[in-house]
Amino acid sequence: MSTATLNVQSTQTNHSTEDEAAVLAVIEALRKAHLDKNASLFAAQFAPDAAIFNLAPPLVHHGVDLSEKQAWMDSWATPIEIDSRDLNVTVSGDFAFVHGFLHLSGTKKGADYAVSFWVRETVCLERQGSGWRIVHEHTSVPFYMDGTPRPAFDLKP
Amino acid sequence: MSTATLNVQSTQTNHSTEDEAAVLAVIEALRKAHLDKNASLFAAQFAPDAAIFNLAPPLVHHGVDLSEKQAWMDSWATPIEIDSRDLNVTVSGDFAFVHGFLHLSGTKKGADYAVSFWVRETVCLERQGSGWRIVHEHTSVPFYMDGTPRPAFDLKP
Repeated sequence: MSTATLNVQSTQTNHSTEDEAAVLAVIEALRKAHLDKNASLFAAQFAPDAAIFNLAPPLVHHGVDLSEKQAWMDSWATPIEIDSRDLNVTVSGDFAFVHGFLHLSGTKKGADYAVSFWVRETVCLERQGSGWRIVHEHTSVPFYMDGTPRPAFDLKP
Repeated sequence: MSTATLNVQSTQTNHSTEDEAAVLAVIEALRKAHLDKNASLFAAQFAPDAAIFNLAPPLVHHGVDLSEKQAWMDSWATPIEIDSRDLNVTVSGDFAFVHGFLHLSGTKKGADYAVSFWVRETVCLERQGSGWRIVHEHTSVPFYMDGTPRPAFDLKP
């Protein structure tokens, strides 16, 4: 996710571009954390009690489970690449939210195929001290309801 | 979703309980709209260009498709019942966000089984005129990644 591909849409509010840049820096840190498989960098973007709705069960994690996240990152044979599209940023006072699409790609250890699909991403943040921390994250793919319910990995934004 | 079962957790901000109640009234209107299969009441809760991430594809709808929503509601033989759990409301100025869990239940026309599962729900709202409108909604179930990828309909909050 380079600046060139961020494709940011900013909602008209009374925030500064500085706030918006700081919020986007959190999203960029998530990308970097995956690329480097650095669970600590990932966890540092979250409030300790953040409500996290992941791709996989359970329904919610309360805060990042550092060892679980690191184990998941280490289950990939390649760097975990994340690209973003149509990020929409809204800042209001000490809170902000972002929604858009992330493309996840790489190869899992022991797999003979590449992972490559788009997810929907919503992140709610709170200004804490000098920076912004994620207080809520919601990541998902929709599922087909025709016949056998299955995740829709073939969609593009 | 009665007031008794809302189980609301409010985040500490500088908003009024009046704002919080108005935001929750939008969530209540979504419940009532499903119960009565009233797509117009549903659509009235959304900004015209709201970014909506639904359970089913595509990745996003821009605004509510009224006829599609009414057709979906009419595909149920019973009222569509929605209960909520652990709604967490944050209001900051003219924006707000809510996250929590919704339980969806009823029977589809022609089906010999009842639908009954929990979804994760995130709603971002903007104060527009005298009320609040949804500018972003994200609804999902996670999926199992062991073996055959499939939606996790058996999870409970």
